[in-house]
Amino acid sequence: MRFGRLLPIASWLEGYRGDAFASDLLAAVIVTLMLVPQALAYALLAGLPPEVGLYASMLPLVIYAVFGTSATLAVGPVAVASLMTASALSGIAEAGSPEYVGAALVLASLSGVVLVGMGVLRLGFLANFLSHPVISGFVTASGILIAASQLGHLLGIPYRGSNLIEMGAGLINGLDSANVTTMVIGFGVLAYLYLCRNYLRSVLTGVGLTQRAADLITKAAPVSAVIVTTLVAWGLKLGGDGVNLVGQVPSGLPTLAMPSMDTSLWRTLLPAAVLISLVGFVESVSVAQTLAAKRRQRIDPNKELIALGLSNVGAGVSGGSPVSGGFSRSVVNFEAGAVTPVAGALTAVGIALATLTLTEPLAFLPKATLAATIIVAVGTLIDLPAIRRTMAYSVPDGIAMLATLLLTLLHGVESGILVGVGLSIGLHLYRSSRPHSAVVGRVPGTEHFRNIERHDVETNQRVVFLRVDESLYFANARYLEDTVLALVSNQACLTDLVLTCQAVNIIDASALESLEAINARLRDAGVRLHLAEVKGPVMDRLENTEFCHELTGQVFLSTYAAWEALTNRDGAGAARGLKSASGFSSRTA
Amino acid sequence: MRFGRLLPIASWLEGYRGDAFASDLLAAVIVTLMLVPQALAYALLAGLPPEVGLYASMLPLVIYAVFGTSATLAVGPVAVASLMTASALSGIAEAGSPEYVGAALVLASLSGVVLVGMGVLRLGFLANFLSHPVISGFVTASGILIAASQLGHLLGIPYRGSNLIEMGAGLINGLDSANVTTMVIGFGVLAYLYLCRNYLRSVLTGVGLTQRAADLITKAAPVSAVIVTTLVAWGLKLGGDGVNLVGQVPSGLPTLAMPSMDTSLWRTLLPAAVLISLVGFVESVSVAQTLAAKRRQRIDPNKELIALGLSNVGAGVSGGSPVSGGFSRSVVNFEAGAVTPVAGALTAVGIALATLTLTEPLAFLPKATLAATIIVAVGTLIDLPAIRRTMAYSVPDGIAMLATLLLTLLHGVESGILVGVGLSIGLHLYRSSRPHSAVVGRVPGTEHFRNIERHDVETNQRVVFLRVDESLYFANARYLEDTVLALVSNQACLTDLVLTCQAVNIIDASALESLEAINARLRDAGVRLHLAEVKGPVMDRLENTEFCHELTGQVFLSTYAAWEALTNRDGAGAARGLKSASGFSSRTA
Repeated sequence: MRFGRLLPIASWLEGYRGDAFASDLLAAVIVTLMLVPQALAYALLAGLPPEVGLYASMLPLVIYAVFGTSATLAVGPVAVASLMTASALSGIAEAGSPEYVGAALVLASLSGVVLVGMGVLRLGFLANFLSHPVISGFVTASGILIAASQLGHLLGIPYRGSNLIEMGAGLINGLDSANVTTMVIGFGVLAYLYLCRNYLRSVLTGVGLTQRAADLITKAAPVSAVIVTTLVAWGLKLGGDGVNLVGQVPSGLPTLAMPSMDTSLWRTLLPAAVLISLVGFVESVSVAQTLAAKRRQRIDPNKELIALGLSNVGAGVSGGSPVSGGFSRSVVNFEAGAVTPVAGALTAVGIALATLTLTEPLAFLPKATLAATIIVAVGTLIDLPAIRRTMAYSVPDGIAMLATLLLTLLHGVESGILVGVGLSIGLHLYRSSRPHSAVVGRVPGTEHFRNIERHDVETNQRVVFLRVDESLYFANARYLEDTVLALVSNQACLTDLVLTCQAVNIIDASALESLEAINARLRDAGVRLHLAEVKGPVMDRLENTEFCHELTGQVFLSTYAAWEALTNRDGAGAARGLKSASGFSSRTA
Repeated sequence: MRFGRLLPIASWLEGYRGDAFASDLLAAVIVTLMLVPQALAYALLAGLPPEVGLYASMLPLVIYAVFGTSATLAVGPVAVASLMTASALSGIAEAGSPEYVGAALVLASLSGVVLVGMGVLRLGFLANFLSHPVISGFVTASGILIAASQLGHLLGIPYRGSNLIEMGAGLINGLDSANVTTMVIGFGVLAYLYLCRNYLRSVLTGVGLTQRAADLITKAAPVSAVIVTTLVAWGLKLGGDGVNLVGQVPSGLPTLAMPSMDTSLWRTLLPAAVLISLVGFVESVSVAQTLAAKRRQRIDPNKELIALGLSNVGAGVSGGSPVSGGFSRSVVNFEAGAVTPVAGALTAVGIALATLTLTEPLAFLPKATLAATIIVAVGTLIDLPAIRRTMAYSVPDGIAMLATLLLTLLHGVESGILVGVGLSIGLHLYRSSRPHSAVVGRVPGTEHFRNIERHDVETNQRVVFLRVDESLYFANARYLEDTVLALVSNQACLTDLVLTCQAVNIIDASALESLEAINARLRDAGVRLHLAEVKGPVMDRLENTEFCHELTGQVFLSTYAAWEALTNRDGAGAARGLKSASGFSSRTA
């Protein structure tokens, strides 16, 4: 039983039947058609030989089928992770060299170890700190960078660079050597794919196909471009005309091998591996949750960490680059009817068959075709209006998004995302350092207390009621000290201060010390401190502390009880009200 | 008027009168007596020539008097900052060398610039992230490290080291060369100061002195030890016996000079300067607030940043080491009756007079005397029972404290405090990633809704009420998604989900996207999403968003209104209740 709970596959394998297999097989065929060109293209984007992309589309998919909790997530090489891989490896070795490929395998393994570690230690919450604006700005910038990097392949002047400035320089330097035949193929495919994406579906539904069939055929359009341009390049012997072709792809399945154990290489790649892991995890979980919800299924983020981690380790030991869940392929997988992770495993079989049989024709595939498919694919990543939308909703969030976007474009993926995360956390810490609080007064004739600045309420010169609207912890404890001391120094005849704590879920050790300091300082100033509406679990902890014993005032069950005890009803003899209140203790509250 | 608001001195200087001057003068004399040996001792601790400590006790005090908002804070060299200075400079140059002194001036200037910058940018809240447990663990460890570092001076075998392990090795290596005369002086002074601290006051009050006079004489005990041991060392020519003396101190006032503008040195020292600034600021503000509260005065933390910053810049350009507000001296200043910052300025005059007249006799002062005064002084910093106390109150806080303490002792001040801060922030982020939330039901016969797990409440199979107890932002937005999706996948006949938001003060852009995702996923699953009790400012922002237009359900004024609309009163015909509710919109709520 326990074993079954650890292995998600056990939850569905027993009940797996033939009709499910038929659905999964159909989905696998369609995803395979889509994945072959993508696997080659993303390898190109990452600066890796084409077979690395194919290898990353076999073992990792099988591993995910065993460990994954999403029925439809299509794991494999994806655009953003490929861009991040290229960026991480750019300083390590010459793109495409054996050292470069070796480092890519280390990167995949390391990402895997990081993800599994996060899953085991239940650190998935760390991904929360990639806030939506940061992720959105980063993904948009990645899309632009990817498109810019592929422009060179369309022109026949491949250049590399980790930001727009470097790429722009590469483009300008290479303009002389642009290849016209390459440009014709590249821009031709680009135009074809653009037209397919925007019009093919309505044409197909116009001639009587179902919506779903039209959708799936549209998604497979790159395959037709691959086939046609490969045939053209082969027939016209374009390789001799200076058109860059994919070239010899080793036939056969990958061999298993441990990645390099060079610890200094592992250390160098660790920061990049952490970022690739986090970004990949966030995107995968988001896709998986969206698809799962449509069928009222559920995915378990901590198990996903382990599944994606093991998939990446699988990629690393079988010659593949880092993998994660791809958005468009997962949607296709879902729409094509995949019902279990078997669809993913069957996709791996499809890729294996392609690798065994198609390597000879694929050698004639122009790189410009792949570049065009990438450019069209990343169009969906770019969402510039989101900046305006976010800015309109929240200026700080908009600034975090814009900063991430610009830094990613102009400096590179790693600094972009790190600054974005830093800004988000800084903003969060700043916000949480100033807790909402309000001086409240009694709504006449009721037991309700409201903000004196917004409502017409009764107040008392000698007793102030301060409502604290958030938990108290180190980030905001000193702000509370400041607030209370300001109140006391501004109100000369104050004798009692009541903190009403209905919104306080936690008081940490720092806040406790602040409360002790507040209590001591108020005592020195001749003001008693009272608490009201302290929640049960919070009071349990306070019970045994020095603070509770040294508290100069009392703990009241409700704000109204404090009001009743500390002020008298005609609002004049506050001092008398105080004395009678001191006579009894309501600390048992 | 504006000028007056910027310069705190303007707020009190006009009304300054003769009786205040008399009080301030008396306090200044007493603080000067206390500060002369401390200034020399903390210079020794920082590995600096004695005059650096004296110089740090002149100009910075005058500057603080002009810009500071505390009437009684005694600025100058302090123990913890001196230890941190020694640690920061240990890798830069040989202790006591001209380069070392030059780097100390840079460190002071840089701390000053950092503090002023934080003040201008209103970044004082950053100091909140030095949580109480971290500060407490750090200060205790610093006290232990300082005492351990001074033990060598007591034995006549000065060693340096940035942690207990290095100091232990230094001690063992040097044991052969221990000097008996030095030990007699050192341990003699130590015993004398210990007895004074613990018994002198009661003896003095026993012979009829007032409590306050007895207190102040007790605090000045180190002065008598300095005078006696200086006379002994001079009379017996102990310098020839291998007893380390303070030696030649240049007479005269410091000259003003720009510190070194070596940018690589500035960059190297920046992290240390930031830490010294933050720790010094936190300690200064805490002392200043405690003393101000006793007189119902108030200090302004942001102005304190600027005042302490300018004081440090002053130290850097006048040959002094980093300064901050000292706890014991400030208390003495307060108790001796200082009423305005003039007391601080007069103390600076006192130190200047001492520097002009006392340098010749001070040359004979044994370093062991200074070491003994330091050891006794830092006794107050060490608070080991705080670990147990904190651990009993909150285990995570206790762990953060213990980790800071141990790492500071065993590795050094910088790693100790950084790991402590990292742990605190990590813990905070972890806590905030899991918002309190509860499924609530109706308390029968009332309009109140309570947690279904704790109370006996009415629930409805088709409608779930989820109460969110915290603001929604990127750190916890995805957790909310998980929570909602888990609810939906567990409850097959669910048709409506109500989020009640009375505790939500803010919904940031990430949380908004999560709400959009939740809305879309619930729609796909056939469940409508409603909101209830959304606060005014939060609703204002939501009003114009896509989320609000796409919301499948409604926004209700209260949870009870949602209950009334979505369930019918006999609890059976929920579907009918739903339909009638859809007919009208309460979005104007």
